[in-house]
Amino acid sequence: MGKCRSLTWDGEKLVLLDQTKLPREVVYITCRDHGQVAAAIKEMKVRGAPAIGAAAAYGLVLGAREASLRADFWDALLEVAETLRSTRPTAVNLAWALDRMLQKAAVFRDNPQEAIAVLTREAAAIALEDVEVNRAIGRYGAPLLPQEGGVLTHCNAGALATVDYGTALGVIRAAVEMGKKIRVFACETRPFLQGARLTAYELQADGIPVTLITDNMAGYVMGRGLVEAVVVGADRVAANGDVANKIGTYSLAILAREHGLPFYVAAPCSTIDLATPDGQGIPIEERAPTEVSQLAGIPIAPEGVDILNPAFDVTPAKYITGIITEKGLIQPPYTEGLAALFDK
Amino acid sequence: MGKCRSLTWDGEKLVLLDQTKLPREVVYITCRDHGQVAAAIKEMKVRGAPAIGAAAAYGLVLGAREASLRADFWDALLEVAETLRSTRPTAVNLAWALDRMLQKAAVFRDNPQEAIAVLTREAAAIALEDVEVNRAIGRYGAPLLPQEGGVLTHCNAGALATVDYGTALGVIRAAVEMGKKIRVFACETRPFLQGARLTAYELQADGIPVTLITDNMAGYVMGRGLVEAVVVGADRVAANGDVANKIGTYSLAILAREHGLPFYVAAPCSTIDLATPDGQGIPIEERAPTEVSQLAGIPIAPEGVDILNPAFDVTPAKYITGIITEKGLIQPPYTEGLAALFDK
Repeated sequence: MGKCRSLTWDGEKLVLLDQTKLPREVVYITCRDHGQVAAAIKEMKVRGAPAIGAAAAYGLVLGAREASLRADFWDALLEVAETLRSTRPTAVNLAWALDRMLQKAAVFRDNPQEAIAVLTREAAAIALEDVEVNRAIGRYGAPLLPQEGGVLTHCNAGALATVDYGTALGVIRAAVEMGKKIRVFACETRPFLQGARLTAYELQADGIPVTLITDNMAGYVMGRGLVEAVVVGADRVAANGDVANKIGTYSLAILAREHGLPFYVAAPCSTIDLATPDGQGIPIEERAPTEVSQLAGIPIAPEGVDILNPAFDVTPAKYITGIITEKGLIQPPYTEGLAALFDK
Repeated sequence: MGKCRSLTWDGEKLVLLDQTKLPREVVYITCRDHGQVAAAIKEMKVRGAPAIGAAAAYGLVLGAREASLRADFWDALLEVAETLRSTRPTAVNLAWALDRMLQKAAVFRDNPQEAIAVLTREAAAIALEDVEVNRAIGRYGAPLLPQEGGVLTHCNAGALATVDYGTALGVIRAAVEMGKKIRVFACETRPFLQGARLTAYELQADGIPVTLITDNMAGYVMGRGLVEAVVVGADRVAANGDVANKIGTYSLAILAREHGLPFYVAAPCSTIDLATPDGQGIPIEERAPTEVSQLAGIPIAPEGVDILNPAFDVTPAKYITGIITEKGLIQPPYTEGLAALFDK
């Protein structure tokens, strides 16, 4: 297990590591109701598609307890689910976790206490499975990395983005565990700096060599032959293999292609959304301009300047060498390969 | 003229606009000796290849006055020139300006007062020519931009990077002056944020529409069809057309190629270095890791993490649609086109 755990459930409340404070301060937030969980997701105190899914699952448990005090338990629970669902639009794990939870509890819609018990077990299962899923992604992905060399990653698809171990960083951890000598090049990932603040932090904590670069150095690093592969996470994978991930992923995929480097996406099946045919159908969250214009409250741009702040972009499937899931490596053609994952 | 002037000579001293303080504070620094000018260049209080060249020219004037108090005037002046030359390695305008100055003064090596007079006139000529040169670059470049649409730029190749008007932003200013409706997309340009702090600032001051993006949004902006061309400045152009410019330029050139967008470099002839055969021969300045790990003194990365901080990268000529000089647009094959600029 990594030394960073994004969330812990103690039977009564959800404790989240506040990722907006890292690496300067290690602060935990205690959520006792679903509103606190929803706020934590919205404010990115907990972030990363799988971690958001697990946090929302526990948020629904807390919400079920609140709803059980109302006569219209089930309607109140559905409201809670909608509040949690609407916090962030792009990562599909959020909807996936909530739908899975609601489906399990639906037979107990008239029995709040039973429903709460089922929801609690299901949230624990989601959290536990997430770690197992990440281990499996690591096992399938590790052989794809070089025996010795640099691997570039973007944002944070690590222990902090999941319940533990990570997706993209899980692949790197598994490679290191099998004896490979990997140096990670971490893009700082403006505007929110998940690479600088989180990826550099958790790799440093695990003793995995990491070099931090600004996002615009990726081409330079590839051109100098410092990396041999790129591996990133995903917020949503469409049925055709198009991948929504942190803004900047699309640029990296093009750069990797131009330098002849393999570009891998590490993503659990919960991130794959067969209901969305291609990347055009994935909603892209636009966040506050102050994320770009200020840093720690300090203005770094002239007041009133127009700003774009899409939190994600879509990388077309044609740039992706392979999608590493817990059920194996999926390679083109993606439409068939991804659909087959869900065939029973 | 733009509303931002990077440097002014008042006959006695050099006044520099402190570009590290913008846009929060408009602070001017008065340089009364060459050491102050050298420090200002090193600390990037004045930056941008043409502005560095002009500042160094005036630094040599100040240094000549200091040297005139010594018996070994000429040797002392050469020492001053070396101090100024060693401040930053990549931009060739620095060496170009100093060599031009020394050549003019050489016949007066035994007559400090005459030498000072000649150097003062030559520095003024360099500063004056720079504005004319930028106007000419603008005239040649403006027709290349769309009648209406977005143009992406990187770093600051504007009035602040030159004596006035700018190279890349000079092209944009000239296009706006001829009635074109241009919206500039300015990459913020980590780590030093010249795009956010300087380009956004000077375009806003001139009333030219500008949208600020983080560097990793460039692919997204191109993919969405928001820009129709890219225009950047240069710190050094090699004889074969390879261009050293602010880190991130290389990535932008690849992205432009992939999106079928023209990629222009706006550069005065003083930036062209026929003595350097190709980009491999251009020294790339590596700057302090704290530029990446801290912002306004606030740590944004874990302590002790390994960091790369190359200030520039090299864009191979094959990605460049054209190099806009004051003598016209140079297109491939560059070796012939660039050499012809210097044929008398």
